[in-house]
Amino acid sequence: MAPLIKPTPITGFPEFLPEMRLVEQHLLDTVRQIFERHGFCSIETPLVERLEVLLSKSGDSDKEMYVLGRLQDKKGEEEARYGLHYDLTVPLARYVAQHEQDLTFPFKRYQIQDSFRGERPKMGRYRQFKQCDIDVIGRENLSLEYDALIPAIVLEVLQKCTGMLEVELRLSNRKVLAGFCAGLEIEDPTPILRALDKILKIGPEGVREELTELGLNSKTINLFLTLGQIKTEDTSFVDKIKALGIKNDLLEMGLNELVFCFNRIKAYNPSAPVVVDLSLIRGFDYYTGSVYEVALRNSDFKDSLGGGGRYDNLASTMTKTKLPGVGMTFGISRLLGLLVDQGIMRPNRKSPVQVLVVNLEEDKQKMIDLGKQLRARGINTELYLEGGKLQKQLKYANDKKIPYVWFDSDNTLKNMETGEQIIADPTTWMPDNK
Amino acid sequence: MAPLIKPTPITGFPEFLPEMRLVEQHLLDTVRQIFERHGFCSIETPLVERLEVLLSKSGDSDKEMYVLGRLQDKKGEEEARYGLHYDLTVPLARYVAQHEQDLTFPFKRYQIQDSFRGERPKMGRYRQFKQCDIDVIGRENLSLEYDALIPAIVLEVLQKCTGMLEVELRLSNRKVLAGFCAGLEIEDPTPILRALDKILKIGPEGVREELTELGLNSKTINLFLTLGQIKTEDTSFVDKIKALGIKNDLLEMGLNELVFCFNRIKAYNPSAPVVVDLSLIRGFDYYTGSVYEVALRNSDFKDSLGGGGRYDNLASTMTKTKLPGVGMTFGISRLLGLLVDQGIMRPNRKSPVQVLVVNLEEDKQKMIDLGKQLRARGINTELYLEGGKLQKQLKYANDKKIPYVWFDSDNTLKNMETGEQIIADPTTWMPDNK
Repeated sequence: MAPLIKPTPITGFPEFLPEMRLVEQHLLDTVRQIFERHGFCSIETPLVERLEVLLSKSGDSDKEMYVLGRLQDKKGEEEARYGLHYDLTVPLARYVAQHEQDLTFPFKRYQIQDSFRGERPKMGRYRQFKQCDIDVIGRENLSLEYDALIPAIVLEVLQKCTGMLEVELRLSNRKVLAGFCAGLEIEDPTPILRALDKILKIGPEGVREELTELGLNSKTINLFLTLGQIKTEDTSFVDKIKALGIKNDLLEMGLNELVFCFNRIKAYNPSAPVVVDLSLIRGFDYYTGSVYEVALRNSDFKDSLGGGGRYDNLASTMTKTKLPGVGMTFGISRLLGLLVDQGIMRPNRKSPVQVLVVNLEEDKQKMIDLGKQLRARGINTELYLEGGKLQKQLKYANDKKIPYVWFDSDNTLKNMETGEQIIADPTTWMPDNK
Repeated sequence: MAPLIKPTPITGFPEFLPEMRLVEQHLLDTVRQIFERHGFCSIETPLVERLEVLLSKSGDSDKEMYVLGRLQDKKGEEEARYGLHYDLTVPLARYVAQHEQDLTFPFKRYQIQDSFRGERPKMGRYRQFKQCDIDVIGRENLSLEYDALIPAIVLEVLQKCTGMLEVELRLSNRKVLAGFCAGLEIEDPTPILRALDKILKIGPEGVREELTELGLNSKTINLFLTLGQIKTEDTSFVDKIKALGIKNDLLEMGLNELVFCFNRIKAYNPSAPVVVDLSLIRGFDYYTGSVYEVALRNSDFKDSLGGGGRYDNLASTMTKTKLPGVGMTFGISRLLGLLVDQGIMRPNRKSPVQVLVVNLEEDKQKMIDLGKQLRARGINTELYLEGGKLQKQLKYANDKKIPYVWFDSDNTLKNMETGEQIIADPTTWMPDNK
């Protein structure tokens, strides 16, 4: 006999047992439903893109990517011309540029797919992971309205999914920082952004050191440190920033956008947990206006749940049409992990079955008809077709955590959790919603 | 300015516009719902498997596969140890062998995922395609009941999806042919199966020629040709086969299984379009009992929509546990293409939106609240946030084929198909179900 191949997991490629997959499906359904309620369409792109497309996004040339080869291509005739996408932004850019003539703008889409990073396996780093993106793309221009709509929808999704956990939306606008720098006659704001970005991690004094190394004087440093520590849950940030005495048109515009965005999100949801946080940066060369991050409040879990922002031009390397957009991304895999860790979602049932019909009759026709009857009324119903000892049949229901068992012999219905038994009518009985 | 990258499609990797994707989602939802109604759980496996696993399925060593490399691995340090799965059977075998201790048997799962074949592009050949598999796997043994359940469910799915097209299930059992050969003292039935398999393509006389070349005498050839042309929509095939005068235990067993399977499928659905067809083979070294194929009846579309059968041991290369199973597979991509070609599904709307709220008021709060109200009642509602000329707003609704437009100013509701206008109450109005 041939030696056995050991069926082991591959690091970085997570795989779920049915009970976890059931929970994941529930999460995906919730996300999808809210996006569709707001009128966003779904798209999927091939997992494979041309390498030149994958390499087109500035700053990503060092991303670890997987490239494809053909097993039969023994001679290496073909170079690796294709790779697996590592995010959903690059495919979106290619999609919109390619199908521009067939899309209606503003183009509102969500996309839930796996992405791939060819990284060496590390703790908590996935090489295949499920990601969810939502964006609105305009042609030539895009209303500021969408800078509020997108985070409002994502907040609705994450509030719904996280249940009793408290989420908050952090909000800023890159024009404020850029305008602030311009007002101080600083030409390249990027090193300052990089330093301010670390304020949560290394604290204000750490940032002060970094800004000192950049050669800024202590008065300027104090201005940035004050700015970077402004956090308000109302529009009082405007007065606080104006009190710093910097005057600049771009700064003014950024403040106006930020006020608009804050107020509009509150129009969607008056109790939306929004914090304007001037230390929020999110990437250095991509976003040009609003930036967002969603995170937990009052929790040990400090990582962001998702984020995004406004960008000026989605696909400048692929089309001459200017395609401004605003979007957010969040990791389904990471969110699912969090929800299970925190006990918000509990993987339990091993299948979507609500009722198991056990077989005590000689004949199977009765149980087959009963199953049909229940299914026609929308109840997920499995038949224990093998029959045999009742004890064995009940054990199967227990093992799979099936909530109800129905005896085909006399319509006895057993609630497997409480042990309660009733005589049920298959034309009217409905399971508790769980 | 850098030269533009042309955003072109990659042959063999299909990509849908939103209107087609919407139709695909509807198809996927229908399939999923029926599987879950019958109590099957969903699993997903990573798209990536170890090469040794991918190569473990007998007869598949010549499959064109994609292997993965890392872009950063400039020196080719790592050999290609991983590849993309080319079907969902090999991943299922690895999954069940790996998680054997955590699964409840019989393990009933469905799986809808993309598969990949590294073929050179050809007309109608996809290199990435969506596939759907449903299987029941037993540990050590598996009741014959599942040989009827699986095709009954798949028939239900395909009848539901294809609407007014007529589908039929073709049914056979490999034991009948194997037993028939054994009764004729033919040791290796495979070449005969290969010949009989072509009966539809090359006709009985073509098969006669091939069987003659195998050295069979004309009496034996006539027996096989008669057998291969038996097609019944009831159990009269038993008498017809018995009339051929071959006696063999395996043949007897095969006939009993076939009768059981036929009758049981009728027990699930008395009007199920089932044809016992002894020319049906489906692969040569994998299936050991029941075999199935679903195809259209009275149609120019001659390809099968799906098929499958019973196998003795799913994962003999990966575990010592015997894992008998029965399953079917069908191509979502192919089915979708057929349904659209035949006008059963009509890609039309560009988004899931049911109502577009147009903005005629100065203020946006009224439309925002209206949208919230409709969404809370389960209606997919988009807001035309940019406002502006009504004509432009209506054109947007038209372009996206949105069925209803709601005027925020006075609750006028316009049916975009009929042109009819009414005054609607947002607390009670519901769209027609479409």
